[in-house]
Amino acid sequence: MSEFMEYYSGPISRLIEEFSKLPGIGRKTAQRLAFHVINMNLEDVDSLSKAIIEAKKQIKYCASCCNITDKEKCDICSNQGRSEEVICVVEDPRDVSAMERTKEFRGKYHVLHGVISPMDGVGPDMIKVKELLVRLNNPQVKEVILATNPTIEGEATAMYLARLIKPLGIKVTRIAHGLPVGGDLEYADEVTISKALEGRREL
Amino acid sequence: MSEFMEYYSGPISRLIEEFSKLPGIGRKTAQRLAFHVINMNLEDVDSLSKAIIEAKKQIKYCASCCNITDKEKCDICSNQGRSEEVICVVEDPRDVSAMERTKEFRGKYHVLHGVISPMDGVGPDMIKVKELLVRLNNPQVKEVILATNPTIEGEATAMYLARLIKPLGIKVTRIAHGLPVGGDLEYADEVTISKALEGRREL
Repeated sequence: MSEFMEYYSGPISRLIEEFSKLPGIGRKTAQRLAFHVINMNLEDVDSLSKAIIEAKKQIKYCASCCNITDKEKCDICSNQGRSEEVICVVEDPRDVSAMERTKEFRGKYHVLHGVISPMDGVGPDMIKVKELLVRLNNPQVKEVILATNPTIEGEATAMYLARLIKPLGIKVTRIAHGLPVGGDLEYADEVTISKALEGRREL
Repeated sequence: MSEFMEYYSGPISRLIEEFSKLPGIGRKTAQRLAFHVINMNLEDVDSLSKAIIEAKKQIKYCASCCNITDKEKCDICSNQGRSEEVICVVEDPRDVSAMERTKEFRGKYHVLHGVISPMDGVGPDMIKVKELLVRLNNPQVKEVILATNPTIEGEATAMYLARLIKPLGIKVTRIAHGLPVGGDLEYADEVTISKALEGRREL
């Protein structure tokens, strides 16, 4: 409880308190949101309140790819039009959404829900690696694309998975690193530039 | 519905949609908050969801000062230790909180819930002016402090109220305008400086 709240009555203090627990929401924003809520009409407040609890209660992991879904299997996994041959491995459900926006990839996904990070005490058993290996028993799978982020942990996780999957006789690829489209050499960091050089292709 | 959401399942899309209706919350922030919610534990989510609907349902206006409260009369109005003689008129419940933080004022408040603003179609009958006049029938009231914001609308509202209250034989004062403490002449705008000059006091 801070000095911001003691002059508000109980329910509004509690709401400010709850909002300020959310990431990126400070006291002032929480206060602004709380006042917005009490000025909204009851229907809208009800639908906000319900959406929060429903999302928490209904969302679970897809039995196949571990993406978030409200069904047993997510829409992508149960889509017959999508190839079983390629599995794109990502860290996070938001990465699936980012990949889907390109409308390029027609295979399936696997969401790790994290990366291996010894510094944070996250080992391979704490992300969805086991679930990925189970899926690779399917002889239809021809390629695994490792699309973890180009961070230290993302790279390490990709290396770890590559070493695990290659012996199974499945092709393992890593998404390309290089200059972002519309980017500028002048402002690119040296690691990105050296990766872009390393990955150069004949025209 | 935007391209950000079509790859998420129903409950999470709906939550993103609901969050992004809040002021200052864009798509990306709404998405971040929604993912935070599904990673919170159920108890915390439940308490957030309840705090929202409870605040909306329980908060009403104080029968006397129109400040927000969950009781019939707010804590300040029902506090016997506070003087009935001075009423400080503010625009918004947050202004009460700001005034209270100074711990200087021991009178009561009146919350207008807005300012007169012909540009936005807000007339005196759309803010809590009538309720203020009713309170001024109390012969105990000796002074009304007009603490609306130093904006055009705030000034106009103060002027309007002053003209209304003075004939009742009640002292009407306006909070001082001038340089903020810790401020710098160099960076102050000319209106503030001229107000500061106008309001100069002999030492």
